[in-house]
Amino acid sequence: MIKETARHYRLGYSPLTRSELIQKVASQMSQKRFEHVLRVEEMALILAKRYQCCLEKASIAALTHDYAKERPDDEMVGLIHSGDYPEGLVTYGNAIWHGIVGADIVAKELGITDSDILQAIRLHTTGASDMSLLAKVIYVADYVEMGRDFPVVQEARALALEDLDEAVAFETKQTLLYLTQKEMLIYPKTLETYNHWVVK
Amino acid sequence: MIKETARHYRLGYSPLTRSELIQKVASQMSQKRFEHVLRVEEMALILAKRYQCCLEKASIAALTHDYAKERPDDEMVGLIHSGDYPEGLVTYGNAIWHGIVGADIVAKELGITDSDILQAIRLHTTGASDMSLLAKVIYVADYVEMGRDFPVVQEARALALEDLDEAVAFETKQTLLYLTQKEMLIYPKTLETYNHWVVK
Repeated sequence: MIKETARHYRLGYSPLTRSELIQKVASQMSQKRFEHVLRVEEMALILAKRYQCCLEKASIAALTHDYAKERPDDEMVGLIHSGDYPEGLVTYGNAIWHGIVGADIVAKELGITDSDILQAIRLHTTGASDMSLLAKVIYVADYVEMGRDFPVVQEARALALEDLDEAVAFETKQTLLYLTQKEMLIYPKTLETYNHWVVK
Repeated sequence: MIKETARHYRLGYSPLTRSELIQKVASQMSQKRFEHVLRVEEMALILAKRYQCCLEKASIAALTHDYAKERPDDEMVGLIHSGDYPEGLVTYGNAIWHGIVGADIVAKELGITDSDILQAIRLHTTGASDMSLLAKVIYVADYVEMGRDFPVVQEARALALEDLDEAVAFETKQTLLYLTQKEMLIYPKTLETYNHWVVK
């Protein structure tokens, strides 16, 4: 029922229909990742409805958030060097690039120009101190979509339906703990998100 | 025996004798913190000896590392606003200020001008990607001095005597986990230290 409302785009945020968009997205990734993307859309629509966010924007941002995740590293590095990106971005790997650079790829290849949608794609991995409702919806939907399975996912999912800002905080804290525990590189923007949303 | 070598300063790093320096330091803080400072000196000398760091520098940096820790916030804020400090520093509180601003207070009030000593004071709380041997000695000594009592202190202490770089990494990781778990503000420099020393 919820998905019905976003099945046909009428608001002009995407030059492609939803079916065309889905086909383009599917062509960019493995079956497994594509199924994740569809689950993120499903969750994003649930959250968008719950928090009065535009359903079409939520659908489009969710479907395109991982559009560039399987691009070769050398293509991404080339784009970073030729574009206007934060200093040092090139050292962080595609876990970070695919959102920040991916937003520009989505704009270029899919003709999506809405700045709120592009910013939600840009921030979906790291968050930010300043996040729109849509950016929060995508950030949280990506973390709690129904295929996710990690120790605190049920708590995160319950929180997502209860209080979106608290869900942003919870996800950010857990992500920082996870990355630190695994001794993985942490992008400065993630710390910005933590200092803003987690610290009281 | 170790402490004997640093009891009388002969190398010109401090215009004050060790006794005069100790007296000045003691006047700046509670008895409890002063005892911590003396234990940091003791540990710093152990590490300095173990890793062939200058004992006099280690003694002076250790004795002065918390010199500004009990300054009133308004004095520190005034200094930050009138000095050349990183943008946003003022929001982080004295847990961060007392090292970064403290180094300049030590220079001004105690006449210590050696840049290696001042940098070790500056970095003793946050670390940095680029740390001198002395900066590492002070950073680690402050964490593992014999009065410290927290779950992983014995592991940290053993590591400190085995491999100083590994001790820097261990301390940084534990600190990041602790701050995140407690939902406390994290200074960007701490993340820089983590990304450099902890991530393989």
